[in-house]
Formats: sequence, C-alpha cells, structure tokens
Amino acid sequence: MNQRNLKEFESIFYPRSISVVGASQDKWKFGTKYLQALVESGFKGELYPINPHEVEILGLKTYPKLISIPGAVDYVIVSIPARSMLALFDDCIAKGVKVVQIFTAGFRETGEEEGRDLEKEMVKKAKEGNFRIIGPNCIGVYSPAHCMPFGPMHFKANAGSVGFISHSGGVAGHIIEEGVRRGICFSKVVSFGNGCDLDNCDYLEYLAYDSETKIVGAYLEGAKDSRRLLKLVKEISKIKPISIWKGGRTPAGSQTAASHSGSLAGSDIIWKAALRQAGVVKVETHEELIDTILAFQYLSRFKGNSVAVIAGLYGAGGGACVASSDACTSLGLEVPPFSEETRAELKAILPRAGSIFRNPLDMGSVGGILNILSKTIELVLAESLIDILIIQVPVDFLMGLNSVKAFHDTIDIIINFKNIQNKPIIALSPHGSFFTERLEFEKRLYDAGIPAYPTFERAAKAIVNVSWFYRFHEQREL
Amino acid sequence: MNQRNLKEFESIFYPRSISVVGASQDKWKFGTKYLQALVESGFKGELYPINPHEVEILGLKTYPKLISIPGAVDYVIVSIPARSMLALFDDCIAKGVKVVQIFTAGFRETGEEEGRDLEKEMVKKAKEGNFRIIGPNCIGVYSPAHCMPFGPMHFKANAGSVGFISHSGGVAGHIIEEGVRRGICFSKVVSFGNGCDLDNCDYLEYLAYDSETKIVGAYLEGAKDSRRLLKLVKEISKIKPISIWKGGRTPAGSQTAASHSGSLAGSDIIWKAALRQAGVVKVETHEELIDTILAFQYLSRFKGNSVAVIAGLYGAGGGACVASSDACTSLGLEVPPFSEETRAELKAILPRAGSIFRNPLDMGSVGGILNILSKTIELVLAESLIDILIIQVPVDFLMGLNSVKAFHDTIDIIINFKNIQNKPIIALSPHGSFFTERLEFEKRLYDAGIPAYPTFERAAKAIVNVSWFYRFHEQREL
Repeated sequence: MNQRNLKEFESIFYPRSISVVGASQDKWKFGTKYLQALVESGFKGELYPINPHEVEILGLKTYPKLISIPGAVDYVIVSIPARSMLALFDDCIAKGVKVVQIFTAGFRETGEEEGRDLEKEMVKKAKEGNFRIIGPNCIGVYSPAHCMPFGPMHFKANAGSVGFISHSGGVAGHIIEEGVRRGICFSKVVSFGNGCDLDNCDYLEYLAYDSETKIVGAYLEGAKDSRRLLKLVKEISKIKPISIWKGGRTPAGSQTAASHSGSLAGSDIIWKAALRQAGVVKVETHEELIDTILAFQYLSRFKGNSVAVIAGLYGAGGGACVASSDACTSLGLEVPPFSEETRAELKAILPRAGSIFRNPLDMGSVGGILNILSKTIELVLAESLIDILIIQVPVDFLMGLNSVKAFHDTIDIIINFKNIQNKPIIALSPHGSFFTERLEFEKRLYDAGIPAYPTFERAAKAIVNVSWFYRFHEQREL
Repeated sequence: MNQRNLKEFESIFYPRSISVVGASQDKWKFGTKYLQALVESGFKGELYPINPHEVEILGLKTYPKLISIPGAVDYVIVSIPARSMLALFDDCIAKGVKVVQIFTAGFRETGEEEGRDLEKEMVKKAKEGNFRIIGPNCIGVYSPAHCMPFGPMHFKANAGSVGFISHSGGVAGHIIEEGVRRGICFSKVVSFGNGCDLDNCDYLEYLAYDSETKIVGAYLEGAKDSRRLLKLVKEISKIKPISIWKGGRTPAGSQTAASHSGSLAGSDIIWKAALRQAGVVKVETHEELIDTILAFQYLSRFKGNSVAVIAGLYGAGGGACVASSDACTSLGLEVPPFSEETRAELKAILPRAGSIFRNPLDMGSVGGILNILSKTIELVLAESLIDILIIQVPVDFLMGLNSVKAFHDTIDIIINFKNIQNKPIIALSPHGSFFTERLEFEKRLYDAGIPAYPTFERAAKAIVNVSWFYRFHEQREL
C-alpha cells in the first residue's frame, strides 16, 4: 500500500471534519440520523450540516452548500436523491474534499443503464477531483477509536482489533450489534455497497496494513477482480486471521446478490476451494462468521483439538454431556477420556449419585459448592491431553435454583482459572428466558477473556475454524 | 392404552395430592425447591411435606412419615439418598400411593452392580405395592393445566398442545425455558431419567392417547425395546406430528448416554432410517427440535415449499435477501420469482433506489410507511405460487432508526395479515442487543399466531421439517 493510498484511508477512518448533505429538521430522515449519530458518538472533529433551507440542525451551524463552509472538509456523507449527485460532485471538487460516502441507492444495482452510467460518471468526476467514493448504496464507516458511528447507528463500545468489511450494510450492522453484545471490539468496519470506486480489495489491503486491525472478517457477495482478491487474502492470511462469509452461494442467492450489490457471485465450489487454499476460513452463515471472529479474538494462536466439557454445575447436566459429545466429535474435535488418576480424584470430591465421571463431566449438582467447583476445574485443566475447556453456565437454570450471589461466585471461580493458567476457557451460555441477567454474566466473562456461545455446535465449529487456520499456516511455514 | 394404565397416568399428570419427601428448612435443598415451586405454581391439590424434624415447612403442616398423613396421597416426590429408598417404598405401599417420582440419582446409571440391584428391588416393590415409578435420576413432571411446575422450576405459562418427554431433565428444562419464551404451550412434559419402571414407550403411549396433546416431541438417548418404540412412533405419527432428537448419535455421545441414563444408544444411521420410515421428524440438535415443535404448533398441516421473503423494512435488507435465498434454497425450499404483474405493482409503490424487486424483496427503507408496507405484503401474499411468507423484523435496526410507536404499528400490519388471510407468516427476528424490546415484540407476534425465528437457516429448516411430515403422511394415505 503506497503512501498516497494510506493518506486516503486516513481521511476515511480518521477524518478531521465531516459534512452531512441531506440532514434536515425531520429527525427520521437518514441524513439527519447520520448527523445525530455523529453527535451522540462524540465525534471529535468539525461537523457541517448542509441544507439550503436551514441555519441550524441539531444545534450545529448549517450551510447552504459545501462551498459555503469556511474550513476544510475531509469527508462528505451524502443522503440526497441520485439525480442530484453530479451537481454535488462539482461542489466536492470545488471544495477539495477527500472522501464522499454515499448512502443513496439507485445506481448499478438497479440493473438499468441509467444507474450504471451515472455511477461511471461519478467515478470519472471523483478521479478528476482527486477524491474517493465509499458506496454508493452503502451505510459507510464505523471507526470507534475516532468516535465515528456506523452510519445512523451509534454503539457504546470500545475500539479493538477486529476489522470488518461488507457488501451489505444490514449484515455489517447486525455483526456489530451482536458483536458488541458478545465482546467483539472492532478496529474499523466499512459497508461499501456497490463499491464503484474503492472496492473490497482496497479495503482489505488497508486492513492488512492497519496496525490496529489484528483480525479480518468480510461479508462478500462477489468480486470484480477475483484473481486480485484471492492473491490479496492469501497474503493477509499469512499475517492475520481472516474469515470470509460469501453470500450468494446458491444459484438463487447469486441472482439476488446481482440485484443487491451488482456483484457476480461465481461458483461456490470454486470459492470454497480457492479460499481454503489461500488459508482463509470460509464460513457459511452469519452465526458462523461472528462465532469465528469471536474465537479468533479470544483464542490467540490456538491449534488444539482436544476439548474438555464440564456441565451440570447445579445438576441436570447429563443431556448437555451427551449433546456436547455429539457436537464436538461430529465436527472433528476430540473429547478424550480423563486419566484414571483424574477420574479417581474426581470421584473423591463429587457425589457418586448424579455425576458422570467422564469427559464430558457432569458435576451432579455440587457446582454451587465453590471449593468443589474450583478443585474440579483444576483437575480437568491439568489433564495433559486437554487443549481447551468448555464449561456450561446455564443462567436460567442457575438463577432459578440458586442465589444471584452464588452465581457471581461461580463466575469468579471460572474467571480465576482464566487468569492463573494458559488453557483457553469457553462458556456455554444457552439462550433461555433470563436475558438481562445472562447478558450481565456474559459481559463479566468476556471482560475477563472468556467468550460465550449459545450452543455446543456453534462453540465447536468456532474452535475447529480457529484451530484449522493456525495449523494450516504452521504447515505452510514448515 | 387400557383403562388401568389411563388411571395411572391420571395420577401422574393430575394428582389430587402430592407429598414431598426431602423438603426442609434449607431453601437450597432440592426437596425444598420442589415444594416451593408447587406452592408458587398454585398447585390446587393437597401438599404434604415429609420431615421427621419439622412441624411446618413453607407454611405447610409437615409430617414425620408418609403414613402419618391423614388423607390419601396420590403422588410422592422423593429427594433423599438412594440408600433410604427401599424403606420409603415400604411406607408408599402402606400408604397406598399411586406414583413415586424420584429426583435422587445413584442407580443403574452409575454402571455399578449396587445401583442396578437397588433399582431392580425398587421396581419389584412398586409392582407389589401397585404404584408406578417416574425416574429415578429425573426431574419429573410438568403439567401446567394442573398447576404442576417442572420439578423445582416454576414457569408462568399457559397450558397448550405440546407433549414432550425426555431422558434428560436438563434438556427438558431448557426446552420449556426457551419454548415458553417463544410461545410454545405445553400440555405435559416428563423427564424420566433412568425410566426403571415407566419408560419412553409408556409416556409416548399416553401422549398418543391424551386429547390435550396435539404435537409430540422427545429427547431420547436410546430405547430398551427399540422394536416397540418404532412401532409406537409409527402409530403416533399417523395421528399427531412427532419430532425426536436422538442424543448419542456419535460413538462418543453414545458412550456418554450410557453413563447418563444407562441407555444403549445404537447406530445413528439405523435410527435415522427407521424413524424416517416411521414418519417421524428426526432432528439433530436442541435448536432444530424446538424450532420444529414451534413450527408444528403454528403451521398446522403445512405442506408447501415455496417461500416469499420480505426484508429491509427500514432499509439495509439486501444482505438478508441474499442470505435468505441461500438458506432457503440450500435446504430444499423454493423462492420463486414474483409474476411480472406483481413486480410492476411493486415498482409502482416502492422506491426504485434501494429496493430489490425480486423474491426475496428488499423494501428499500419505506417499510415504515404503513400503507406501502400493507400494500406490499398484500401483493406478495396474493402471489399464487407462494405458500408462506417470511418477514424480517430486525428489532435492533428498527428501534435504532424509528420510534417505538412506529414499530408497534409495523407489527399491527403484520398481525392484521395473519388474521385476514390463510397463508402462514413467520417473523425473522435476529438476536442483536435490544433484548427486552425484542422479547416484547416477539410475544405480540406469537400471541397473534406468528412464530419468530432468529435466523433464516433455522426458519427454513423448521418449514422443511413440517412440510416433509405432512407430505409423507399424505402420500401414505393415498
């Protein structure tokens, strides 16, 4: 990535000033929502609403045109009809802006000549004016370290290490929503829609370079230049974990993708093989994507495949033991038996009745007795064959059968083991009915470096993906 | 099912009196929790705690022994050590009880001779005393119409049509927790653990007979008499939808199942083929089980396979359109194109920019305009090729971008279409961060007969399962 490109990306993720074209007194208009989210997020730079009929919007001095703004403008957010776009571009040239991000749709993705032509004309003008286009037909950028919200959506979340790019604003929005709730911290996110100027490869190149970004995720519906994309992701996978969800893997999905972002999806079999050869984790669903990114964030350099499972902290863990055996082994993980010594030690501290002295281990309802829980986890983690521990923490069950304090004590014990030894721990936290409490407990866990998954299948698949990635690259290095 | 058996099951699901052996002043003891849940649920019959050291527990007169109770006792809940079981059984014989439900574990599932022998002795005594055993090593019965909680867990929920049986109390508990949250109403649930006396076939026979139960679900880890089980479920599937999750489908899971409920799991390939031939929907995970039961409850006699999808009520639905195309068609559903006439009518009312005038349909952010939303749904449902509508209602997105009132108005429109026409509607409600609001909106939907699913994959799989079931039985009838 050359110095000029880098400078352009500085203006994308760290603009010193943003102008919003299309904000008004109507708070439900997207332009206004973009402006409002910038205000709520505490964006540190200058904000300039543009509206010829207003002098002030959301308490900010408002200008009739871009060129009436006294200071410099790095970044322009646009939510006005497509037909007004070229006139605005002339103003952008005159003003010397660096980046224009276009929410407006109605271009190439319509499949009609008019939209295609307009898009071409815009790209031509942007080249002349020496600025870059994000979109059109996109939500845009999320840059939490710079207090830039994701388009109209403000998230209360810390900046972190996950860079994410998406053809779809909706997918990116849902990934951030769920990601923030589950402890994923993002470095940069961009939804780029039609990507008429800067496209997936450009953003990926920047994320590869960006030192804040340690993990790369992408939702793609296709690639204009698949050769360049594959070469690029192969390079990225050598330095950063990368996971890609490719939408349009079926003929029906591929046709839909063409109407959505104007992408040519291509054969899924070829994508699958090519991405795998490039050392990229290719996932099949939204859930697998977010689960894998979460695992990459918490299971750094994990190459293991032997899992220990502890269930039944307050009893009734037998079904979970069976389900976790099925889930883990059917996805390629091992659930190796404990050594005779460990089994003997477990039998000495757990009740004979109601426990299952195997791996998966059912604690037979004594998980609430803290010294027993602690000793049990210690014994299991000390097993030399075990690479990782999944511990079932079913909030509904526990909240119904014990006190809130007892449950926090349980969490304390689990967190302590995360801190005093090196094997990763994953919490299995099924979605039941105690939502508020579950979110609070999960937050305590992920703040301590323990990710939570709702099902054994999803946890196991994420472990498999991360382990595959690091093993693949270890072998490549040999 | 003969009259004698029926009478026994009356005492199981509608006992006139319950005695709890093992309740105490210690509120965290399971015996006490059983009693407390009965009190909280408002159980209408007599409640008799048994404890030789107390005169009153939870405000209820407490008796030293079963035989000291003046009135008749139908049902005994037992949470005392296994070694005291035979003496208690003598009291049960003397008292003439009908049913003994045993939470206590430490019997056949330990794999040890002592436990096996004790279980045999208990069965012998129960035969002599003319009473039946539920368990041991189980949570027991949930009978909401009779205000019986699920063991120590009280649920605020109406009685309904779903009967569920389970080798695992934990699985049954999670199914009820999640089921109640998602609008599943249960007729009867029983977790039967080791099933030393009454076993899966007995309970299934009763659910087949029970007129309150219209849908049957089961979590099984094996069968003592698989020939009887298969014959039975084949008969049930002719009269009621039935879905079975068979735990222990892998060698590791099967070994775990032996330690959990003492079950011999058997080959999964054989189970799969046999259950399918018997007309039973065999599912692979907890999620698929609950999703399928939910679909059976709401999609009565549904045999279709052509889905319409509406996404992007407030914009950003393009990714969801691609994802739903992939999810539906890869699982065997069709997403047929709309007719030219419908496309033309949609184009007349939806914005050209940002919409996708296909199936799946992206409304391009005008879903908040109620007459447009209404007309759009009307046009889509009127398409003759369409059997069912999935409409994406992403609460996080909508709450962030519009008012709560606007969102309720949107729900009103969807509910109205459920009421004025016959094609089923499913809501796609992804898990984001607005949990409380999402639960409230989902409740409004399912109260109106519209189930909600968190992902397109899960919705599509549930539709496929229900449709397969009714088509299979339609062909069998021909």
